[in-house]
Amino acid sequence: MYRIDINCDMGEGFGAYRLGADDQLMKHITSANIACGFHAGDPGTIRSTVRLALEHGVAIGAHPGLPDMSGFGRRRMDISPREAYEMVVYQVGAVMAFAKSEGGTLTHVKPHGALYNMAAQDASLAEAIAEAVYRVDGNLKLYGLSGSELVRAGERIGLFAVNEAFADRAYEEDGSLTPRSMDGAVLDSPEAASAQAILMVSEGKARTRSGTLVNVQADSICVHGDTHDALAHVTQLRKALKDANVTVQSPGK
Amino acid sequence: MYRIDINCDMGEGFGAYRLGADDQLMKHITSANIACGFHAGDPGTIRSTVRLALEHGVAIGAHPGLPDMSGFGRRRMDISPREAYEMVVYQVGAVMAFAKSEGGTLTHVKPHGALYNMAAQDASLAEAIAEAVYRVDGNLKLYGLSGSELVRAGERIGLFAVNEAFADRAYEEDGSLTPRSMDGAVLDSPEAASAQAILMVSEGKARTRSGTLVNVQADSICVHGDTHDALAHVTQLRKALKDANVTVQSPGK
Amino acid sequence: MYRIDINCDMGEGFGAYRLGADDQLMKHITSANIACGFHAGDPGTIRSTVRLALEHGVAIGAHPGLPDMSGFGRRRMDISPREAYEMVVYQVGAVMAFAKSEGGTLTHVKPHGALYNMAAQDASLAEAIAEAVYRVDGNLKLYGLSGSELVRAGERIGLFAVNEAFADRAYEEDGSLTPRSMDGAVLDSPEAASAQAILMVSEGKARTRSGTLVNVQADSICVHGDTHDALAHVTQLRKALKDANVTVQSPGK
Amino acid sequence: MYRIDINCDMGEGFGAYRLGADDQLMKHITSANIACGFHAGDPGTIRSTVRLALEHGVAIGAHPGLPDMSGFGRRRMDISPREAYEMVVYQVGAVMAFAKSEGGTLTHVKPHGALYNMAAQDASLAEAIAEAVYRVDGNLKLYGLSGSELVRAGERIGLFAVNEAFADRAYEEDGSLTPRSMDGAVLDSPEAASAQAILMVSEGKARTRSGTLVNVQADSICVHGDTHDALAHVTQLRKALKDANVTVQSPGK
Repeated sequence: MYRIDINCDMGEGFGAYRLGADDQLMKHITSANIACGFHAGDPGTIRSTVRLALEHGVAIGAHPGLPDMSGFGRRRMDISPREAYEMVVYQVGAVMAFAKSEGGTLTHVKPHGALYNMAAQDASLAEAIAEAVYRVDGNLKLYGLSGSELVRAGERIGLFAVNEAFADRAYEEDGSLTPRSMDGAVLDSPEAASAQAILMVSEGKARTRSGTLVNVQADSICVHGDTHDALAHVTQLRKALKDANVTVQSPGK
Repeated sequence: MYRIDINCDMGEGFGAYRLGADDQLMKHITSANIACGFHAGDPGTIRSTVRLALEHGVAIGAHPGLPDMSGFGRRRMDISPREAYEMVVYQVGAVMAFAKSEGGTLTHVKPHGALYNMAAQDASLAEAIAEAVYRVDGNLKLYGLSGSELVRAGERIGLFAVNEAFADRAYEEDGSLTPRSMDGAVLDSPEAASAQAILMVSEGKARTRSGTLVNVQADSICVHGDTHDALAHVTQLRKALKDANVTVQSPGK
Repeated sequence: MYRIDINCDMGEGFGAYRLGADDQLMKHITSANIACGFHAGDPGTIRSTVRLALEHGVAIGAHPGLPDMSGFGRRRMDISPREAYEMVVYQVGAVMAFAKSEGGTLTHVKPHGALYNMAAQDASLAEAIAEAVYRVDGNLKLYGLSGSELVRAGERIGLFAVNEAFADRAYEEDGSLTPRSMDGAVLDSPEAASAQAILMVSEGKARTRSGTLVNVQADSICVHGDTHDALAHVTQLRKALKDANVTVQSPGK
Repeated sequence: MYRIDINCDMGEGFGAYRLGADDQLMKHITSANIACGFHAGDPGTIRSTVRLALEHGVAIGAHPGLPDMSGFGRRRMDISPREAYEMVVYQVGAVMAFAKSEGGTLTHVKPHGALYNMAAQDASLAEAIAEAVYRVDGNLKLYGLSGSELVRAGERIGLFAVNEAFADRAYEEDGSLTPRSMDGAVLDSPEAASAQAILMVSEGKARTRSGTLVNVQADSICVHGDTHDALAHVTQLRKALKDANVTVQSPGK
């Protein structure tokens, strides 16, 4: 009997701006990563997203990013581990306060965009982020790219670390994600993505572009909320998981 | 035997910028109100200010303000009660996370600048702020202008409300502060300010410009950190309070 | 033979965010007011909007707003005339540089949201804004609410002032706009709005809620880009103006 | 008969914050690089700094930086050439408007911090910045690190390029600056810095840490405004240049 978590980045609007289809997607996922106001999101958006998650019994997470609203947190910045630590404490605290004030609990943290990618490779940044999360609340789960420095740092410090895998992305022979700039990096069809998800969940493997299999631990699968076919993808994924008798729930439940 | 709290706005630097003499003042006060990143402050400054407060046994408070860094939170903005609620939850949560991650506890909240002044007069804004504080943590104390709508809203919702008075400001017959634009609004001499502090603490009264006395409940006296003679003022105040046998400590201790 | 300008606020996206249907609307208008980065907009959005205006022969204007991205410049802020002056010089300069670097010319300035409304009523703010525009470039036209302080201030300082009227808004007996909070404030049907536009252009009048007529000088009619039926409104308006033999072109052409 | 320009970064305050001693330094320099509001500065600070420069007959320049106020523009960000182009057009336009509205002329552009350093090494970023400056106004001079990609890109596109040298920094054998992290990178004594300035101006050379001489073209020497001994440095520099009979004036005058 297999289990998997489905997580999605949420609450990425800001002021008058809306992004993603949170209302439609929330019912299909088990963990929501809520933008914290640095790369996207603002107090009002955080609050309404927390409420939406509570209504659907979805686990509430903070999704801290780089302080780069105009770049949506996707541009690497040369920050120090100390700065990473401090921006994570701040952002996690802000979302935690909304979880509490709405009668819920913050369960996890997943860094966003460039911060996520940098923390996957840079051990000192990863350690700073893991320490920030741990010192705010040692019960928080830490999401990171499967097998990455961030997951290792989380485990080392004593956090429940969650290996995140991507059903709709191709993997390289060494287990890393195929860069988006390369052909075949993204599995556009919902069916192919679902098939890869089943492979990850049941065998802990993903298929490379050349057709071989690599080990990829998948505790949680990320679905993207900001693409036009997000709903089709997640609907197909849920159906495939159900057909394969996989239980979908947030980690550690 | 009388008691009084001395509070000061702290951590109002930002990035490369410094403001105030936190290092020198912290040892003379009992409650620090730490800027939260909206009108001033940033994650690194919050963290170092929390540490400084912990070193000196000073109570740690959040000092939320309007989202107006270029105006230092001093320009009134036409925000709704809902927006006030949300910006207070966010900012209190951020500072609370630093208090916790540094091994301390957040004890109080005092709004800043225009948000403080608006909440003193506008009952619906006051109520929204009090509710925000209460729902994040009902044990937090809420600082407001003595006798103001904010203090009343705090008491109504069940918070420990702290009446703040200003030793270095003249009061009007109705108990309100003399506007800064009027002559005699500020008591420039440390001696005059200290004398008014003693009057407030021992008799619950302040002297108006015309020389009469008005009732002003003083649970805490605010000292300003950003004036060039801040240190002279607080030193003189502490001496006068000691001479008058007044115990200086944070509220509810 | 009557003439009218049709203007629209444009370029109100930011970073990853999109707002409005600039691509579809640009071909139907004669003047574009481009957000400058304070309430909306960013350098990349300004540039692409300037290009789009140039492609369609639409007059390029700056649309300066209050520094309040999270409130979209719609919340009144208590700014001084000096601050208004400075934020207008800054924002006009930024858009002017894009007009020039793309091979065009900045032709006009129209303040946004709360800044527009405040400048309509407050003579000292209006004067500060008019002076800012004049000192950056005395050839710039200044758009303001028809008959407002801003239009008067523009004329006084020697600018070409443009009286803006709203085809889809009801007017009060004194010539002011019916507040949006009141019933009947907005003319939802494209036909009713077009009829009012013709009345404004041909007779210089608008109809009040009680059915009487008031004088409203209309040099330019504003169409809204951020409503779902924006395209229907502007298409109907252009048709009605054509049927009535009204020439649609930017002012002073 | 030798000539040199002395430039200094100015206007780096923001809102309530002050940085540097612009008032004291302005009389000693010939070119001011004014922060544009992205890494530091705001409309009011730009205006007062432009005025101060005009009073002292100092050439007015724009000092565009990365959009990173909390990092003071010193953290590298992974921006594209297109983004660099757009942020330079925007910032140059904003300061140009103040130069014009105060009755002066914008004469030059010098990128700030990480943007300066990235443009020194990365040819495509350098080209984007040079093109942005050129398209806003082909008469603007472009300051870059002596011999860098930015200077080359400026010359290629047809701008007057200014080679900037650092009197108080050590150079490596290849003509690059000794990284600040290394011993001996900064010449702390005003006398040593002045001696190096004379060497640069009169012989076009700088001394390396090992004592050899390398070629460094110096059209302008940068003095730092944000160090505690800035005034001592620039006073000593002016005296040394006078004693050596070097004319101090802005480039191309």
